[in-house]
Amino acid sequence: MQEWKTFQKENEQRFLDELLELLRIPSISAKPENKADMMSCAELVKKRLEEAGAGKAEIHPTKGHPVVYGELITDPSKPTVLVYGHYDVQPVEPLELWHSGPFEPVIKDGKIFARGSADDKGQFYMHVKALETMVKTNSVPLNIKFLIEGEEEVGSENLGIFMEAHKDLLKADVVLISDTAMISLDTPSLDTGVRGLSYIEVEVTGPDRDLHSGVYGGAVANPITILAQMIASLHDENNHITIPGFYDDVKELSREERAKINQAPYDEEAYKKEQGVKALWGEKGYTTLERTGIRPTLELNGIWGGYQGEGSKTVLPSKAHAKISCRLVPGQDHHKITGLLTRHLEKITPDCVTLKVIVHHGGNPYVTPIDSVEYKAAEKAIEATFGKSPIPVRGGGSIPITTLFESILNCKTIFMGFGLDSDNLHSPNEKYNLENYYKGIETIPYFHKFYAELKK
Amino acid sequence: MQEWKTFQKENEQRFLDELLELLRIPSISAKPENKADMMSCAELVKKRLEEAGAGKAEIHPTKGHPVVYGELITDPSKPTVLVYGHYDVQPVEPLELWHSGPFEPVIKDGKIFARGSADDKGQFYMHVKALETMVKTNSVPLNIKFLIEGEEEVGSENLGIFMEAHKDLLKADVVLISDTAMISLDTPSLDTGVRGLSYIEVEVTGPDRDLHSGVYGGAVANPITILAQMIASLHDENNHITIPGFYDDVKELSREERAKINQAPYDEEAYKKEQGVKALWGEKGYTTLERTGIRPTLELNGIWGGYQGEGSKTVLPSKAHAKISCRLVPGQDHHKITGLLTRHLEKITPDCVTLKVIVHHGGNPYVTPIDSVEYKAAEKAIEATFGKSPIPVRGGGSIPITTLFESILNCKTIFMGFGLDSDNLHSPNEKYNLENYYKGIETIPYFHKFYAELKK
Repeated sequence: MQEWKTFQKENEQRFLDELLELLRIPSISAKPENKADMMSCAELVKKRLEEAGAGKAEIHPTKGHPVVYGELITDPSKPTVLVYGHYDVQPVEPLELWHSGPFEPVIKDGKIFARGSADDKGQFYMHVKALETMVKTNSVPLNIKFLIEGEEEVGSENLGIFMEAHKDLLKADVVLISDTAMISLDTPSLDTGVRGLSYIEVEVTGPDRDLHSGVYGGAVANPITILAQMIASLHDENNHITIPGFYDDVKELSREERAKINQAPYDEEAYKKEQGVKALWGEKGYTTLERTGIRPTLELNGIWGGYQGEGSKTVLPSKAHAKISCRLVPGQDHHKITGLLTRHLEKITPDCVTLKVIVHHGGNPYVTPIDSVEYKAAEKAIEATFGKSPIPVRGGGSIPITTLFESILNCKTIFMGFGLDSDNLHSPNEKYNLENYYKGIETIPYFHKFYAELKK
Repeated sequence: MQEWKTFQKENEQRFLDELLELLRIPSISAKPENKADMMSCAELVKKRLEEAGAGKAEIHPTKGHPVVYGELITDPSKPTVLVYGHYDVQPVEPLELWHSGPFEPVIKDGKIFARGSADDKGQFYMHVKALETMVKTNSVPLNIKFLIEGEEEVGSENLGIFMEAHKDLLKADVVLISDTAMISLDTPSLDTGVRGLSYIEVEVTGPDRDLHSGVYGGAVANPITILAQMIASLHDENNHITIPGFYDDVKELSREERAKINQAPYDEEAYKKEQGVKALWGEKGYTTLERTGIRPTLELNGIWGGYQGEGSKTVLPSKAHAKISCRLVPGQDHHKITGLLTRHLEKITPDCVTLKVIVHHGGNPYVTPIDSVEYKAAEKAIEATFGKSPIPVRGGGSIPITTLFESILNCKTIFMGFGLDSDNLHSPNEKYNLENYYKGIETIPYFHKFYAELKK
């Protein structure tokens, strides 16, 4: 569609400026001190949806941060696509590792550096600009709804409640999400699944107060030592997870399916170099692509206890803490895994300490069927703008709410992500390539076009 | 000496008020922001030494915090006692666990609550008041020197340099220190040894930046997991330390010596209750008194890495850190142990991460011979004011500078501590019992009297 391209070319700078304005709002959902920023951000999203041509845009308060809803209904008899995204971002610590302010976007070497540039402001905003493109060129082929939430990075706790209460409003034929990565612009890919997540926090308490390590060390259990022993025991010498029952429900893939996954381009030396490591790590018997795509994992996201300041303090601390999360694959249920993990930790806690487990958010794994109309529409859209077919890959990340779309709205989800693995998501110096941003805006209208055609 | 007692009784309130003034100064040697407080504290100590009757009192700058020196030379032909103490204190975190401000001393139930009340302001200040008692009653039986440093809690790095440069000034026959605990006022005891210390910090680096745990978890080593595995491997199932060569130089005690140590009063149920634990922990084959007195230990003093804030963040962190210290017993050398520990950690570091070791301070273990004139003087002093003989015990803590007194000044050290194990040293709500403070001031002049007599 030459018209789309022309409109987008003419408005390129404005499309970027608007994104930068969005990126300047520190919408960190995890931090109570950013509550007002969350509201400002929701308001800006609502305003931009209206300007782009959504006939209706509204802010729905929740118990947590508000949800922004928008829609353009062209003809109720046509299919409806529900675009999902999130305007909240991850915390920015450690701040000292950022080369520029996380909320002062900088364009450098064709990349937008800012927290949220790829995850997910830069990606959901492509959909707003795609809407504008179609509206301004009078070529909206179906109905489009927008559900942009503010709690994705803290577990989307209130989204399910909102969806249950607004089933009719959200009624759609398919959910479209840009919140994942593709292999590269040269090798486009579509995620055909995301892993589930089970996230807990543990607190190990030894003595009821910090003690002098010289006076009590050796006789009173050190909670850091015990916690380290517990963590160490969660993987065996082959890096298999040792929690009884953990793998019971994992749907093992056939030899053929595994071979297909391993066809994706992968260069071990380049991968190691990119992460700055001399050697890789992982479950014996599986490749890197399998370890990050089709196998469940157990990761330590944080640990703390005792003295962490400068120099030395000879303390035997009262408490040690850790944040532990598991990525889950099809077959596994996050409630069941959280239970297994919790009970296993309780079982291996020795008498000399006490354990407290706090359950954070979770979500189930999800797989998109690649023979569906919606997958084919996405495939054709990529072909139209990239000139080649996308490779289907199983993503390692988690978007737990996809199972909600299935259960509450009875909708399949398409992951049409335009990010790259190198975008430093959740890390300092998060970035999003300008080229990927514009390519996304270019590709999205084709999805709607092909989906409308195929769905007929 | 009725005169001493009368003078002390009359000045009781002032003795306490002066200590409280000293406790109000936040002389935390580890924190750069308290540098000025360190100087104010040194100046107050100097002033009080002069007022107490020291003929000379001076502040000596060092590369770090200043040393306060004072002396009263009554007759160069008489023996000289060098009193050592430290005016610096430990950091106060976690602040939220204090019931009152760490530098706003509160008297409650006969106890002085404040950082430094027992370690060591309250204890070294007893010596200043003991000096005053003898001076004001014209009964100073020998020469007394004071060496009050400001870097004990950060490893006394500059004290050795100062001592080497001022050997003549510091020349003495014995060193007297009150910086340890006794069993109780009902069961007085004298420490006959302190353990040595080897203190290091480790940094384990995985990827060169924080990564998304969903995208890279399972394929790139998590430095927290690896650090936990390394820490866990440092003790075996019997809680013996696994570092090769660690126990090689430990002087094993005879069955008789061990029996003697186990004669000290010890009630396991009371001990567990006091620490708030359901079960004890420690090296198989040894009792609690042995584990904390005559056996070397390895403790984790701190650990940190990844996300430690509220809620959940799915990060695979770049780095994990830990502070590790070993308590050493006679025979062990802290340089050697630090080397063994460092090399062992290097050896067990897998290829998928890199290790950096930072060496903090260390010191060698020290034992006082109980058949010496100085020990007998201390024993007689305790008998004079407590009405019973002290039990000799081996303390678990470390005062690394005692080996400096032996090597540089050729002096033995007497540990005449009046603290209690329950004083919360290095912990929130550090306290020192008023009764112990006054009993110390009462007892110390007797040490000088008996030492002068026995030394003749």
